[in-house]
Amino acid sequence: MLSTLANQSSQRLIISNQIIRLASTTTKVSAKSSSQVGKIDSESKAGPTSFKTTKIIDTNYENKPSVVILGSGWGAISFLKHIDTKKYNVSIISPRPYFLFTPLLPSTPVGTVDEKSIIEPVVNFALKKKGNVTYYETAAQEINPDRNTVTVESVSDITQVLTRKHVESKNGDTVPHLKPKDRIEIKYDYLISAVGAEPNTFNIPGVDKYGLFMKEIDDSFKVRQKFASNLEKANFLPPGDPERKRLLSIVVVGGGPTGVETAGELQDYVTQELKKYSPSLANEVQIHLVEALPIVLNMFDKKLSSYAQSVLQDTSIKLHLKTAVAKVEPDHLTAKSKNDDGTVTEETIPYGTLIWATGNKCRPVITDLFKKIPAQNASTRALNVNPFLQVKGSNNIFAIGDNAFIGLPPTAQVAHQEAEYLAKSFDKMAQIKDFHQTLSNRKEKVDLLFEENHFKPFKYVHLGALAYLGSEKAIANITYGKRNLYTGGGAFTFYIWRATYLAMLLSARTRFKVCMDWLKLTFFKRDFFKGM
Amino acid sequence: MLSTLANQSSQRLIISNQIIRLASTTTKVSAKSSSQVGKIDSESKAGPTSFKTTKIIDTNYENKPSVVILGSGWGAISFLKHIDTKKYNVSIISPRPYFLFTPLLPSTPVGTVDEKSIIEPVVNFALKKKGNVTYYETAAQEINPDRNTVTVESVSDITQVLTRKHVESKNGDTVPHLKPKDRIEIKYDYLISAVGAEPNTFNIPGVDKYGLFMKEIDDSFKVRQKFASNLEKANFLPPGDPERKRLLSIVVVGGGPTGVETAGELQDYVTQELKKYSPSLANEVQIHLVEALPIVLNMFDKKLSSYAQSVLQDTSIKLHLKTAVAKVEPDHLTAKSKNDDGTVTEETIPYGTLIWATGNKCRPVITDLFKKIPAQNASTRALNVNPFLQVKGSNNIFAIGDNAFIGLPPTAQVAHQEAEYLAKSFDKMAQIKDFHQTLSNRKEKVDLLFEENHFKPFKYVHLGALAYLGSEKAIANITYGKRNLYTGGGAFTFYIWRATYLAMLLSARTRFKVCMDWLKLTFFKRDFFKGM
Repeated sequence: MLSTLANQSSQRLIISNQIIRLASTTTKVSAKSSSQVGKIDSESKAGPTSFKTTKIIDTNYENKPSVVILGSGWGAISFLKHIDTKKYNVSIISPRPYFLFTPLLPSTPVGTVDEKSIIEPVVNFALKKKGNVTYYETAAQEINPDRNTVTVESVSDITQVLTRKHVESKNGDTVPHLKPKDRIEIKYDYLISAVGAEPNTFNIPGVDKYGLFMKEIDDSFKVRQKFASNLEKANFLPPGDPERKRLLSIVVVGGGPTGVETAGELQDYVTQELKKYSPSLANEVQIHLVEALPIVLNMFDKKLSSYAQSVLQDTSIKLHLKTAVAKVEPDHLTAKSKNDDGTVTEETIPYGTLIWATGNKCRPVITDLFKKIPAQNASTRALNVNPFLQVKGSNNIFAIGDNAFIGLPPTAQVAHQEAEYLAKSFDKMAQIKDFHQTLSNRKEKVDLLFEENHFKPFKYVHLGALAYLGSEKAIANITYGKRNLYTGGGAFTFYIWRATYLAMLLSARTRFKVCMDWLKLTFFKRDFFKGM
Repeated sequence: MLSTLANQSSQRLIISNQIIRLASTTTKVSAKSSSQVGKIDSESKAGPTSFKTTKIIDTNYENKPSVVILGSGWGAISFLKHIDTKKYNVSIISPRPYFLFTPLLPSTPVGTVDEKSIIEPVVNFALKKKGNVTYYETAAQEINPDRNTVTVESVSDITQVLTRKHVESKNGDTVPHLKPKDRIEIKYDYLISAVGAEPNTFNIPGVDKYGLFMKEIDDSFKVRQKFASNLEKANFLPPGDPERKRLLSIVVVGGGPTGVETAGELQDYVTQELKKYSPSLANEVQIHLVEALPIVLNMFDKKLSSYAQSVLQDTSIKLHLKTAVAKVEPDHLTAKSKNDDGTVTEETIPYGTLIWATGNKCRPVITDLFKKIPAQNASTRALNVNPFLQVKGSNNIFAIGDNAFIGLPPTAQVAHQEAEYLAKSFDKMAQIKDFHQTLSNRKEKVDLLFEENHFKPFKYVHLGALAYLGSEKAIANITYGKRNLYTGGGAFTFYIWRATYLAMLLSARTRFKVCMDWLKLTFFKRDFFKGM
């Protein structure tokens, strides 16, 4: 997608932007000049291994602190939506130029919902803000807490990575431009780390090479492509042929909502559509769901997860519980199941499509940061944050979502609530006289400063959990903190599931598109086009 | 997409299909056995250069003649929709598993309409038929009129090419299967050639290598990808930079409806959306429309085409009339314009994106057929057909659409009307006693047989022409033969354009989806996502 940048003149709220191109010829653009909102410092990177020039982009202008957000997921975009851009200069850095509504991702491989229906460009969120927002379509490579900068990926691959700055250059100054090979550091006063996590393969051999994931839009295209091409290949073989059976075997590893919903949606396609075109293929498709725990959907209460299991089994999905994958080969995997008597059975499951939907692990940019902040040296899974979501051991780095650890599960609603809380904290910080200065100078007991100023610690309100099971049945447990509002499973709950997801979608466009996709499905077949 | 096959038992109209896998071990399956609807003959292909076994698939069973349709465009699918499958065994061979509603293709690169909204799987049309329909997802490589067969492409690339046969095998016989490397010939009693045409580069050097087309769905993805990536690259360069100007230059060659609509849609995206994100980029995008004739849209009357030209120029599209492209280099093209005084000016147009939307040329499978039928030896552009759409010099090959020449322009409505006419002819042929036999034995003056039996020759009724110009203006000339029903241009005509296209869409699903895409556009931006 084309992600260009939103800019609004600070005088008037008209949207009118121009792209800054940072040139190596331009150094030290004055920060005081109101028509130049970006300062560029050129410095030679020391050391014999690097010959590149480092450019530092400083967005602290108009006496507003600069807030740099890393990521474009639930935490990052919710924070962007709520932060007051009249009080802060906001930049957002993410290689993915759109927000992805992850709860509906399992619906996309078989075309129940279109991929484009659940993504919304970052720039559309940026354009809605009243102040200046800069979006850098690039990945954060390194966080440098010693000099308050984020190093972004080399922009040599210009079709993927792009650095943009929206500036109203009133006097028509020649704005400098950025050379693709430059090393760029973006300076922050506050950093909001919301880069999420990546799929965890638990170092099980073969998963990286042969498994598909269910985390990004591209994963959906890959699963559709793989499954469709396996159906075609299987079609050449006679029924009962072991190779045909293998091609038609789908293994989903992970009994959480993503795994269960992916299995359910695939089974829906097979039962509701493939069966019409090609019953003999449809009858031989076997979906396996592998889970290490004794139950699937363990975040629900026992009754609901038992119900879920019975629905899955009714739709002919084969459950492998208390089963851990040991090794993945190109055409089969080896799993170990714990028996009730304590013995272990080794099992071989041939597969044509393997979908890995288990836990998360830390992204490299975060593991690298662990080393740089003494208080985080012992962290492994995520950045330890205090109750004010401040990264322990840092004054000006905050973390939300899956890359932050505060004892909560890595879910969208946790990230969303943390983002809303943090945006409010930033509002309050801007209202307290000299707070920024005081925080910046504080040497120890940083969190006490928040307490002294009567900041309330972050409090999570659990709103429940939902999961689609396939065959138009869902389970839901809707709560408000400890108050239980709705618990149920079945066809009616499926509509609650749909309504809740519609309400949760962060943009009107995606809400409209998802609605239309569902409406379409009541009359027509799914859009299951290989290669599209 | 997964294209599997529709089958309906001839006794009851239930859909229940099974896929025949043709094995080299099975030869001469009796055509009389009602449970075996496919005959397979194995024969060794003579000659030292070929070591492959040739399989002949014969679908003449239940004493119904077999009709083989080549293609999945306007002619082929319209014929499939109208042919009576109780009277004929119908097979359809096409490498493209869906029908594409070509009139809306220019709306897809910028996301005005989604690609999936204007395609409908061949199998969905096949499933609606009452009799047996077999779809072979493969390209016809060679037509062999001497032995009434079509050679299909080797199926070694099984992800692309697939041969399928929907058969109700009542007694559960082991059905033979097809090996990927087999050479396959499909036998026909009647062949309907409707393979269309391919873009004509007129052997102008560089067009094949550097130009994009606007003929298939994939072309739309390519244009979006190219334009989006050029916008990103341009973004690195300062305004006024010649390379930036080049990247932002789009050249559309061909002033017919496809070229004009493609230029108009691209300009719409630039004016209505890019301008909001990035005015400095938007202001520098220049769309060129190159046409060899002195006017664009020459199928309309002078008044309408003049109006069209003024609308295009108002939206800042630069027209290059009486201009012929002479050579295409990677970053610019050379064109020659005729001046009013008869002199010729050579012009260089730098481009970032080149879209070639000029004429058509014959597909190789048709030019190959020219050589095999003496009466077609002089044909160059298409198969010469008689007024009964029969290929001159053949008893049992008919041709419709762009691969047939009967003095009409190569448009969707011509192909559509020819298909409807031909399906009716086939109806009549089935009703006349021994007609099939008589036709098959007739040695000369074959068309007289049709006249003797009071077949009316094909008569085309011109229903007019429509073209979208961009900025929600269109021109239309709606007729019924020589009767003029509506002539107009402007914003109102735009709605007529939309209504007509909606009515023309061949399936309810695409009609629904296109409607929703247009509805979406009244509230939200286009879905312009690079790489999707």
